[in-house]
Amino acid sequence: MAVRRPGNDSPRLTARGAATRARIVTTAANLMFRQGVTATTLDQVVDACGVSKSQLYHYFPDKEALITEVIAMRENHMVSSQKPQLDQVRSMRDLERWRDSIVTSHWEREVPYRCPIGSLATELACRYDDARQSLAAVFARWQELLANGLSRMRESGELDPGADPAKLAVAFIAAMQGGYLLAETMQDERPLVVALDMALDHIKAQVKTPVASLTQADN
Amino acid sequence: MAVRRPGNDSPRLTARGAATRARIVTTAANLMFRQGVTATTLDQVVDACGVSKSQLYHYFPDKEALITEVIAMRENHMVSSQKPQLDQVRSMRDLERWRDSIVTSHWEREVPYRCPIGSLATELACRYDDARQSLAAVFARWQELLANGLSRMRESGELDPGADPAKLAVAFIAAMQGGYLLAETMQDERPLVVALDMALDHIKAQVKTPVASLTQADN
Repeated sequence: MAVRRPGNDSPRLTARGAATRARIVTTAANLMFRQGVTATTLDQVVDACGVSKSQLYHYFPDKEALITEVIAMRENHMVSSQKPQLDQVRSMRDLERWRDSIVTSHWEREVPYRCPIGSLATELACRYDDARQSLAAVFARWQELLANGLSRMRESGELDPGADPAKLAVAFIAAMQGGYLLAETMQDERPLVVALDMALDHIKAQVKTPVASLTQADN
Repeated sequence: MAVRRPGNDSPRLTARGAATRARIVTTAANLMFRQGVTATTLDQVVDACGVSKSQLYHYFPDKEALITEVIAMRENHMVSSQKPQLDQVRSMRDLERWRDSIVTSHWEREVPYRCPIGSLATELACRYDDARQSLAAVFARWQELLANGLSRMRESGELDPGADPAKLAVAFIAAMQGGYLLAETMQDERPLVVALDMALDHIKAQVKTPVASLTQADN
């Protein structure tokens, strides 16, 4: 699969054309999220979107071109939903609030416990190297947003100078992804909560420990 | 998809028939592992296996019946590969050896960083409730094998009496699954190692802490 850079070969679009194109991408992304990429056919996208197949082909020469745009859309969504929160991270309390928002967003929006990016990665990484690379870049970006917050915590002295923000961020995103997978399979949010709490505890272990809690741990 | 209990409607098989049937399941499992379930067609299985399509249909009425057997095979493999090691777990050192075997098994066997069970779950859980339930049972079994080891560590006094083996096991399997996902997407084993180390540290935090290390942490 030759995954092109998004938008590279798009024709100049009218406002209406751009809206139709965006609607096709959103519809495809939703279908792929709920049933998987391979299981989603262009016929299903056309039906769900209310466009003709020739309209779809006008914007996307093939399914691969559509997948490329879905990945780009998911990256934009991740950044627009995660960056405002992660840019505010300066303390453990901020991280706990972020953890809470991850858990509650699923039942608030009534979407399954399933990461839109993680589920794309599991299905695409093994087959399409371009898509794999794009998704690796999305994860790297996500980890960076979190690592920046952890770096601020280290600079302010909340985290130990020896703490490694990049590594802690990788561990957190891994816990989140594994938590999603178990939560979806078990249809139970608890594995996600347990995994995120482990990742938070892992960061907390890098918080300079006050003497009082050491004494308590020694009991 | 009506995923039947494995083997329920199998005809009585000759030794040769049983071998052919097992070969079809193994071939399908390998293809599904490397390229995904939906992307694997029965034609590909037939070609890779060197059987005729009518032979395949003799053993499996449809793809769903084959998927049911693939899940059962993956469960058997998980138990036969994990149980001997996890039944030996009585200390942190044993857990570290298990962690090492998870990481090295991939480059020793030259297979991708990808969990055969986790990848089935991501693709099937959102679409087929029977498969989801079967895979939830496989994860529960895996967690139980690990939790039993952690319970032994708690009973022997290595872990704190307040440690929760079931919860620690869920966190460990989540870290492993998320680590696999990132390692596969990044084509780099480090996210898997980082995630597994976090999970080990999370268990270590429940080890009764000797006074010496508390003093050190207090510096």
